[in-house]
Amino acid sequence: MIDVCLLGTGGMMPLPYRYLTSLMTRIEGHQLLIDCGEGTQIAAKKAGWSTYPVDVICFTHYHADHISGLPGFLLSMGNADRTEPLTLIGPKGLERVVSALRVIAPELPFEIRFRELTEKRETIDLGFVTLEAFRVNHNITCYGYSLVLRRAGKFDADRAKELGLPVQFWGRLQKGETVEYEGAVYTSDMVMGAERRGIKLTYCTDTRPSSGVSAAAAGADLFICEGMYGEREKDKKAREYKHMTMYDAAKLAKDAGAGELWLTHYSPSMNRPGDYIDAVQEIFPQAVCGKDGMSTTLRFRD
Amino acid sequence: MIDVCLLGTGGMMPLPYRYLTSLMTRIEGHQLLIDCGEGTQIAAKKAGWSTYPVDVICFTHYHADHISGLPGFLLSMGNADRTEPLTLIGPKGLERVVSALRVIAPELPFEIRFRELTEKRETIDLGFVTLEAFRVNHNITCYGYSLVLRRAGKFDADRAKELGLPVQFWGRLQKGETVEYEGAVYTSDMVMGAERRGIKLTYCTDTRPSSGVSAAAAGADLFICEGMYGEREKDKKAREYKHMTMYDAAKLAKDAGAGELWLTHYSPSMNRPGDYIDAVQEIFPQAVCGKDGMSTTLRFRD
Repeated sequence: MIDVCLLGTGGMMPLPYRYLTSLMTRIEGHQLLIDCGEGTQIAAKKAGWSTYPVDVICFTHYHADHISGLPGFLLSMGNADRTEPLTLIGPKGLERVVSALRVIAPELPFEIRFRELTEKRETIDLGFVTLEAFRVNHNITCYGYSLVLRRAGKFDADRAKELGLPVQFWGRLQKGETVEYEGAVYTSDMVMGAERRGIKLTYCTDTRPSSGVSAAAAGADLFICEGMYGEREKDKKAREYKHMTMYDAAKLAKDAGAGELWLTHYSPSMNRPGDYIDAVQEIFPQAVCGKDGMSTTLRFRD
Repeated sequence: MIDVCLLGTGGMMPLPYRYLTSLMTRIEGHQLLIDCGEGTQIAAKKAGWSTYPVDVICFTHYHADHISGLPGFLLSMGNADRTEPLTLIGPKGLERVVSALRVIAPELPFEIRFRELTEKRETIDLGFVTLEAFRVNHNITCYGYSLVLRRAGKFDADRAKELGLPVQFWGRLQKGETVEYEGAVYTSDMVMGAERRGIKLTYCTDTRPSSGVSAAAAGADLFICEGMYGEREKDKKAREYKHMTMYDAAKLAKDAGAGELWLTHYSPSMNRPGDYIDAVQEIFPQAVCGKDGMSTTLRFRD
């Protein structure tokens, strides 16, 4: 399962009661954060999450509203005496940008590992989850991310018994290994059903809509997506600054066949995103307006 | 008069409901900010202050909790289409630190002017107020600041009449100028009384207590001072990390003959600063625990 908390829903600048857009997730005891603007550490504490166990921080891009909170976040981790290495993932330039910002956080008790993205699509196995990065269309290089938890097929105990394989070997087959026993070879697929539906969470902000985005979000249980403007007349502004309206996001969610859509990254000029949700739901009924601290747990279905 | 707002009262890291220590002031339409940690722009908005009209930002030192909010603050000013130059004042290294942080705020529609402090005490005439910077004793170079509004003596109209000086020259004498009229020379002191008591506001955090600090705060109407710890057993920690307890601050306020003391820059470990205020007031009765958004207006006395 994936615990999900949308720490903030603002774009451009943090406001009282609307922190900058950032997503905290927990998967098997590991925490992964996407984006870290000014105030993200406050929003995390407010929502009841610790900064300490974060193993990975992904950045969509290096506009200040997505990374300005990093120095403080790192220092908070350091003040909690964290010693485990921290992995940072983001577009090219990551190490240069982070090194510059660390002018005010030069000494940390843990190692920082950098993973810079260079391809249009990259899949990274983080051990506890698979990260799929996909490049989007903003005015600087920007990526969206999917977190994918795969789920093996069901183990068929009756079939294993029929094969005459003693029970102590079953666990290895369940893990996908091959077993040799009394001269015979047993492969995983002999006792395991087809791979079951897993969990997919997609996060995407700061882009124009495109078929690439909906393809990357295809089948996501939860799609968290920028809906910078709700006012129809702001469509031009969205195009100009390479952002998306709420309606763009709804169309993407529909094309992606997403389970649910949470809108986020609201313009500071939009006081009440909820004013536009009826029109958004006409395009994609499972759309909701994200709110600071909104949480859910995505579970395997059965 | 000086409008004063203590935007935050936290030290080390921002917390929900406790922003980092920062002081906003307004003097004759100009705003001057001291320190700008992560979240300061949010705290300002929450307290009803705009970032736009800030003409000067002073930094005590470059630990992250005093400057990490600068890139976002600059961008908010830029987004509001500010074009007037902004003056930054702080210890040596100011331009280097700010330039590094501006990796995420490279383009701004206004000029930034730097004034780096190098002496133990420096007095800077900002036009709308006199700034007195004084070096304190922290583990890196750190300054405290006083804002001083001087007040001329009373104009003696009867004396001006006695001297036979026509009324159209009075204004120049009130401004301290010298006037020649019909062969006679009239100096300001001939019609102006002794300089009256002005307004003084002193801000000091991140230091060990010293006679230098109380001398710098001498006669301050309001002394805003670090009281990092209230627990008696934290005195050792305060010494080790070069901070002050609430009792240190109270002694300084007493020695300075300050009008009032606002405590601030609380350790994140101290949940309820108010628990210690009775003991603090035994040392200095006009001590209060600063709270986020606490405001006052300092006026000339008559």
